[in-house]
Amino acid sequence: MEENKPAVTVLGLGAMGRALASALLAAGHPTTVWNRSPGKGVELVDAGAVEVGTAAEAVQASRLVIVCLLDHQSVVDVLATTSLSGRIVVDLTTGTPAQGRALAEWVTGRDADFLDGGIMAIPPMIGEPGAFVLYSGSRAAFDTYESVLGAFGGSRYVGANPGFASLYDIALLSGMYGMFAGIGQAFALIASEGLSAAEFAPMLTRWLVAMTGMIATTGASVDKGVHNVGVTSNLAMQSAGFSNLIDTAVDQGVSPELLAPLGDVLAERVADGHGDDSVGGIIEVLRKGGRWSR
Amino acid sequence: MEENKPAVTVLGLGAMGRALASALLAAGHPTTVWNRSPGKGVELVDAGAVEVGTAAEAVQASRLVIVCLLDHQSVVDVLATTSLSGRIVVDLTTGTPAQGRALAEWVTGRDADFLDGGIMAIPPMIGEPGAFVLYSGSRAAFDTYESVLGAFGGSRYVGANPGFASLYDIALLSGMYGMFAGIGQAFALIASEGLSAAEFAPMLTRWLVAMTGMIATTGASVDKGVHNVGVTSNLAMQSAGFSNLIDTAVDQGVSPELLAPLGDVLAERVADGHGDDSVGGIIEVLRKGGRWSR
Repeated sequence: MEENKPAVTVLGLGAMGRALASALLAAGHPTTVWNRSPGKGVELVDAGAVEVGTAAEAVQASRLVIVCLLDHQSVVDVLATTSLSGRIVVDLTTGTPAQGRALAEWVTGRDADFLDGGIMAIPPMIGEPGAFVLYSGSRAAFDTYESVLGAFGGSRYVGANPGFASLYDIALLSGMYGMFAGIGQAFALIASEGLSAAEFAPMLTRWLVAMTGMIATTGASVDKGVHNVGVTSNLAMQSAGFSNLIDTAVDQGVSPELLAPLGDVLAERVADGHGDDSVGGIIEVLRKGGRWSR
Repeated sequence: MEENKPAVTVLGLGAMGRALASALLAAGHPTTVWNRSPGKGVELVDAGAVEVGTAAEAVQASRLVIVCLLDHQSVVDVLATTSLSGRIVVDLTTGTPAQGRALAEWVTGRDADFLDGGIMAIPPMIGEPGAFVLYSGSRAAFDTYESVLGAFGGSRYVGANPGFASLYDIALLSGMYGMFAGIGQAFALIASEGLSAAEFAPMLTRWLVAMTGMIATTGASVDKGVHNVGVTSNLAMQSAGFSNLIDTAVDQGVSPELLAPLGDVLAERVADGHGDDSVGGIIEVLRKGGRWSR
């Protein structure tokens, strides 16, 4: 343990909280940990952490306080039991942009500085080169502690608006879950004929990686709000062919429920007179109000 | 034009048919082309193709007949006007596995050999290294003409069942459209705050490419039908956190309709007692009958 490294507190020792604390310990930070239910910190204590019995004690121990709890409400409930004055609170609990903004107001109202973070990694990736964390909120806090936060992986500051880290986080997760839905559908079709999913996997990987090439061009068209320039495969054609995906799934006994809504969105964009758009045109449909209710 | 290269006929001169004919001409094949509506073959004729006025003449001209029309019914309608005896019909029209099987029966019943193909490329990619085409049906036809078909890009024979090329094709497209839906949702969220989609694009690309790492492990778990071994992020956690995606979209005025069904599928798999599965467990929900109707 190097004396000159800043002390850090970690509140919450779920799989992610433990991974964060481990990374801090590995980087030589005096690390204080707390979890609501006891027994989660044993291995961390063996690695040099100090486990304390209350969140208040834990927050007292370090100026930099990393929070990784179940959800937004847990964060408010736990921090309400502590004295935050002079602290830097970095909330890595997954939440929405609105929650990030609300927490920023709540924390800064208690004489503390605030960063919201979105972790783009699963626990085993923390501290590895592939992990990265998005931060928004206090630029000063980020600049002061960037080297400490670097223990978790790459760090990226995305803006003073404390909701932006969550917005980027949720946007990336939305992209990922869409891809996962597609991958699930693909494997369900392959499995429906008893074909080897393991043999199909490299083909699917190569195909999807190649298709990520559309992201850069779509990003440019989204910024312009113009989707019908330089289009090689337009929505009218894609919408017409989409029924093949639905029909095939039904024929194979696989529910098309994950992809069917995209067919509706493609059809709506074409009906709106934008059949010459590229696939990026679907965002204009998504941004119409009132298309979905619980 | 080299005399020793096999003659090829291309029926259908939409963007894809023209790209296929161009690639054949570039590879030195005597190429005969036909399109229902005239005027599509001008550039091909300039490049050395022979354009004829009827599909029957076109099929007469070459033993190998490449078909790339609007849809399955167009293929049947057009081939019904020709004499197929002794021909090798390679249907690259997008369709379902059932249509591929039906066409195989129809074509082979007319004393011709049959390959169904699924083109994994858009027209400008034809003939480039990134393009590939899946084939199923007659192994003998594939082996005989593999070098000719190589003009389009990589070729992959996926089985004697003539529906398999379409099945792999639709499975890959399903993966792609799921990813596109996620990308659309991601960009809609970024745009909802007026943030730069072009700046976000490289982050999204890097993230999605990294997440394709789950495809290989998911493929192995699909083959085993066991999804709860070596899980780092289980469905119970993912299902609990999924509401953040829906809530954020609604807060930002973006419809969550493309992702909402995945939330239902995750919840169903957890309710079925498989909360310890990895995300691959969703395919077991998709393979339940009766989850979707038009």
